[in-house]
Amino acid sequence: MPHREQAEERPVTIYDVARAAGVAPSTVSRALARPGRVSVATASKVREVAQRLGYQRSRTLPAALQQSQLLAMVVSDIKNPVFTDLVRGADLAAEAAGYTLMVFDSRESVVRERAFERYLAAVDGVVLTSPRLPAAGIRMLAKQRPVVVLNRIVGDLPCVLTDGAEGARRAAEHLHGLGHTDVTYLAGPAASWTDGVRWRGVQQSAADLGMRTCRIRAASPTVEGGFRAAAHWAANPTTGVIAFNDVMAIGFIVRLRALGLEVPRDVSVVGFDNSQLGTLTTPPLTSIASPLRDQGTTATNTLIAILAGKPVPSDPVLLPTRLMPRESTGRSSGAARLRAAVERAG
Amino acid sequence: MPHREQAEERPVTIYDVARAAGVAPSTVSRALARPGRVSVATASKVREVAQRLGYQRSRTLPAALQQSQLLAMVVSDIKNPVFTDLVRGADLAAEAAGYTLMVFDSRESVVRERAFERYLAAVDGVVLTSPRLPAAGIRMLAKQRPVVVLNRIVGDLPCVLTDGAEGARRAAEHLHGLGHTDVTYLAGPAASWTDGVRWRGVQQSAADLGMRTCRIRAASPTVEGGFRAAAHWAANPTTGVIAFNDVMAIGFIVRLRALGLEVPRDVSVVGFDNSQLGTLTTPPLTSIASPLRDQGTTATNTLIAILAGKPVPSDPVLLPTRLMPRESTGRSSGAARLRAAVERAG
Repeated sequence: MPHREQAEERPVTIYDVARAAGVAPSTVSRALARPGRVSVATASKVREVAQRLGYQRSRTLPAALQQSQLLAMVVSDIKNPVFTDLVRGADLAAEAAGYTLMVFDSRESVVRERAFERYLAAVDGVVLTSPRLPAAGIRMLAKQRPVVVLNRIVGDLPCVLTDGAEGARRAAEHLHGLGHTDVTYLAGPAASWTDGVRWRGVQQSAADLGMRTCRIRAASPTVEGGFRAAAHWAANPTTGVIAFNDVMAIGFIVRLRALGLEVPRDVSVVGFDNSQLGTLTTPPLTSIASPLRDQGTTATNTLIAILAGKPVPSDPVLLPTRLMPRESTGRSSGAARLRAAVERAG
Repeated sequence: MPHREQAEERPVTIYDVARAAGVAPSTVSRALARPGRVSVATASKVREVAQRLGYQRSRTLPAALQQSQLLAMVVSDIKNPVFTDLVRGADLAAEAAGYTLMVFDSRESVVRERAFERYLAAVDGVVLTSPRLPAAGIRMLAKQRPVVVLNRIVGDLPCVLTDGAEGARRAAEHLHGLGHTDVTYLAGPAASWTDGVRWRGVQQSAADLGMRTCRIRAASPTVEGGFRAAAHWAANPTTGVIAFNDVMAIGFIVRLRALGLEVPRDVSVVGFDNSQLGTLTTPPLTSIASPLRDQGTTATNTLIAILAGKPVPSDPVLLPTRLMPRESTGRSSGAARLRAAVERAG
């Protein structure tokens, strides 16, 4: 019975001790590392439970590092300004609470996200941003250190995200209001939870509004991914386009221009993220805004609350989105006219 | 005598041992943690001194963490795409050598750079990017862990940077070739070493070419800093402008447009960094390219060589720059015409 054996071999963690002793994990940590910082009764109870469960302190960090005051933030692409906005919000919250934030870039790699486990011991807690790991992998990390998940819902774990379905609806309604009847969704990474939410939101809203949808899967959620998506889009063009994120939308628009098409004259494009970049390009990009710094700050404050043994919301924290209309969207020129323009361009 | 008592209570550090044994602190660290890596005589001498002084190894990191395979990279503004390009290059080099890179954002704060010292113990080595710390502060960090400095020369320490003076000359010559006789330099942070090199380069080249120069000190090396610089520039406008970096150049151009001025019709603007952002704005930005990823990779490979005990160049590694001419620069319209345009706009 290999399964049972595995269960028996799993080392006892401070979370097991906390549960059995009826105290917060941080209290267990303090009771064992610096007993002077908890009451005598608590320290003695925690020690008793730890001994009974066979908790091995040697498996954990040395006392000096038990409270490193270090928080880690794992992001999936440090080159994407969305993530550095989240980092900035997280960093400000960490500093305000006396913590230091360090950032790891997984470069969209599940393997690199998983490898991060090795460094968990060095930090007090982790903010996982748009993790590509399967939920089981995330729970595995969360057994070792408190984890807050940004931009994704992972059952039972504290999660902070913007309401992607609401954002997708705002984008679809905006295009519908401008007379667009067909919309292409330029999808993000297949492993992105957020991408699934946005695509389902686009599909559902479009169905409600009587719009047709199709989806293009880009190689990467980057400017280059947007370049490549334009070639696929041209095979079956629509006047409305919603991109998984701003950088893809910008790459898409740049490539359309190279094809001789104009935005928004021929095509209307909506991004997600409301990045500063999108306000500086031509035309400035219509985008769905998430309060990125707020998200980073909220996630970090949630993590810090957990570390302090304070109660945190058990439901995901959903932050609202806003439509930021700019010049990349306008009245639909009609599907027939677009097809003619694409053929001329092609 | 409380002072004396305090002094006696201070734990003995590896620095005390190093001083008493007449060796480097890193030698003490190696002698105690990995005696195989120093000579038998040194190891025995260090052990003897450590014992005599009552040095407690339990006060230092456990052996398991002595080789964390972690490298740190400290950047001065994670929101600036230049730094995330450097990070990407560093990250790829670290991964290739079996290291993990963690990133700290100092947010242009010397205080935060200095506070990073606290976490040095957790890493094998550090890449300091565009540090704002005085040289003495950087040497202090370098006494504790191997340090490679990016974008600045700090005597005796391994440094990797692009040739900023050469880049400034390329920018000035480009403007001179287009008929500009006056150039304003939009300066970066006062504490930035790179800013000093670029400004002196602009001054020297302009003098050689017979151009007049002036300098505007922006509040921050960001898009917003570029906004603010535009107001100062308008008080004493020049047809040629060289900005400390691309994001400032872009903010400056956006604000000029709001003033009713056109780039390059009225003003020619050159940035530094050749960021992707600058290729996506309108007009696309003429910029001085540094091989950013190469710089990150070179700095990290230098650090890894030091950790492996291999020889590294004692002179700063200077990487060459390139002029990337795009549409933000053109023939000068002449100082008189510009003044008239600014007055109409004002």
